[in-house]
Amino acid sequence: MASVLSLASTTKTFRIAVVGVGLVGNEFIKQLLAFPAPSPFRLVSLSSSKATVFHPDGLSVSAASWKDELASSGRKPDLQVLLRELAALVKPGQEVVLVDNTSSNDVAALYPQFLKFGVNVITPNKKAFSSELSLYESILAASLESGAKFLNEATVGAGLPIISTLKDLVATGDNVLKIEGVFSGTMSYIFNEFSTGKEGGPSFSSVVSVAREKGYTEPHPADDLNGADVARKLTILSRFIPPLRTALPNGYQSVSTKSLVPPQLEGIESGDEFIKRLPEFDAQFDKMRADAAKEGKVLRFAGVVDVQAGIIKADLEKYPVTHPFATALGGSDNIIMFHTERYGARPLVVQGAGAGAAVTAMGVMSDLLKLV
Amino acid sequence: MASVLSLASTTKTFRIAVVGVGLVGNEFIKQLLAFPAPSPFRLVSLSSSKATVFHPDGLSVSAASWKDELASSGRKPDLQVLLRELAALVKPGQEVVLVDNTSSNDVAALYPQFLKFGVNVITPNKKAFSSELSLYESILAASLESGAKFLNEATVGAGLPIISTLKDLVATGDNVLKIEGVFSGTMSYIFNEFSTGKEGGPSFSSVVSVAREKGYTEPHPADDLNGADVARKLTILSRFIPPLRTALPNGYQSVSTKSLVPPQLEGIESGDEFIKRLPEFDAQFDKMRADAAKEGKVLRFAGVVDVQAGIIKADLEKYPVTHPFATALGGSDNIIMFHTERYGARPLVVQGAGAGAAVTAMGVMSDLLKLV
Repeated sequence: MASVLSLASTTKTFRIAVVGVGLVGNEFIKQLLAFPAPSPFRLVSLSSSKATVFHPDGLSVSAASWKDELASSGRKPDLQVLLRELAALVKPGQEVVLVDNTSSNDVAALYPQFLKFGVNVITPNKKAFSSELSLYESILAASLESGAKFLNEATVGAGLPIISTLKDLVATGDNVLKIEGVFSGTMSYIFNEFSTGKEGGPSFSSVVSVAREKGYTEPHPADDLNGADVARKLTILSRFIPPLRTALPNGYQSVSTKSLVPPQLEGIESGDEFIKRLPEFDAQFDKMRADAAKEGKVLRFAGVVDVQAGIIKADLEKYPVTHPFATALGGSDNIIMFHTERYGARPLVVQGAGAGAAVTAMGVMSDLLKLV
Repeated sequence: MASVLSLASTTKTFRIAVVGVGLVGNEFIKQLLAFPAPSPFRLVSLSSSKATVFHPDGLSVSAASWKDELASSGRKPDLQVLLRELAALVKPGQEVVLVDNTSSNDVAALYPQFLKFGVNVITPNKKAFSSELSLYESILAASLESGAKFLNEATVGAGLPIISTLKDLVATGDNVLKIEGVFSGTMSYIFNEFSTGKEGGPSFSSVVSVAREKGYTEPHPADDLNGADVARKLTILSRFIPPLRTALPNGYQSVSTKSLVPPQLEGIESGDEFIKRLPEFDAQFDKMRADAAKEGKVLRFAGVVDVQAGIIKADLEKYPVTHPFATALGGSDNIIMFHTERYGARPLVVQGAGAGAAVTAMGVMSDLLKLV
């Protein structure tokens, strides 16, 4: 009996199709190809926005060769074709996995179809779980129907164990009362630099400008400062909490979100132009910082999911200088506190880098290992 | 195809045998029986030190009735009999799980046999992975042979995601450089109260005495103060780190461990007597606290696994008052920092209650859910 079980567990293979070969995709492929032998994984497809390669038995590529292989392919990417190709590979003892390393709405919209055909989906793409409730519910339904799994650990906190911890709390019967955190590495960096609890300090626009030069912001900083990234992460978390599962019909757009983009700068299309005009608003940010400092507090852009009060919000908050959001954070750290019935007096806290290609790819890879 | 997969994944059952029905066992049974229908779990056996019940198709017990059922059983517990009974239940589509909620060496010594017969083992019992290397290696070999899993998340940090995080870091190819933490809830409480960075404060013996009254220590406080619990946790973690897998031939006894039990009080068998004599040594602890305070530091009983230096030690350390071990800890919190290649500049940190029946049982339950 024992040997039969062993055989069954070791011969299962996982055929992997990777869509999106940017920074995260690149790092993921590196981690996948470096997996120690005997690897259960076979990379069967790679797709960029321009080209695709596919071989049902696995591509003959190495970490050094896959880019050339893909570049020299004459085939244009086509998600419908990929869907049919992957669906045809699903059979007992052979799992198929779509790894979506894009941030594309179009790919996300097709997850229900991949899942319906038995293709597992793993992704750091926030779009699917943070948009309309209907897409989220289609994903759940398709996964339930086929048994294929949808895993998205890396959508919140990158490689940090945030979603897995939340799922464990819920699945083991704990009651989540409140989640509070700094969910954006960019916002973390900006306010760790800008607001230290002392009066004065660098101007807001200069901190944003440096963050952009370091590559911590999107090319257009408004894409971080509008708070949408935090609102998306809060949506994803809320949907794992039973009482809030359907609380956000329009996804992140239903989250009460404070945008730090000055109304006068809304709609400026150029990131450079935005940065050039941001100093006009430094006095406003200076005043907020000074007001907080007078109360012995710092400013942090935080996300709050208050289950009992039914509040889900992304906002610029003030925290005492002795609060972990003031004392424990540095760099572009994320920090997430779970207040639950079991973790009553003191929350369960997870902290660390919440962005970056290597740690994001690690979150994707750890999801893949959960399938094995 | 899709419906076949779905059927296969939903009809698999997990037959659970629980050994040890103390505080953690009690809480685990509560969480198991509260699992929402349709539950894949069937509780087939319960054993205390005095009695056992077994039914291959599942016991007809509720959260309210199992204690009476067990108490009224005329059957004495016998691990060899349980081993045969569980081994007979292992077949395709039917997983069998031994949940060991004792802290017994005798049960731990039998894990290789359970595993060899295809019975999965889940446990918060530290003994197996923290003792001799030979037992640890027998467990790995038996698990590899049959495919049955050995999971022990709750042995370090109770319900906190410590072992799963470490496994993910290693499995995804990160290099762990150093792990540093406060691993004992008891030691955490004692030093959070005793050493706050200010000069003076309550006496060491009074803090230990209060901790004992609150139930934070073992009945005999020397069982916490000797550092063995921390050394065991460091052993468990080290064995998940490839370069240190075989570094501790005698398990926790190979860890460099500072005991806080005064040599003159070694061997005192009564906890009451120990507490009565502890004040004789308050002056020594006062001096250590004062010396630390003069340097702007606090005392914390920490565990360190320094992979590069090859150092594994449990010791009373001094940390600056601005260090997270000084600022972020409260109550009987654990805090664990993972310094890795990917989490380079800033560590990945997990913090929260690291002891208590509900959170320990949660760690066990989350391992069970990983099997599903």
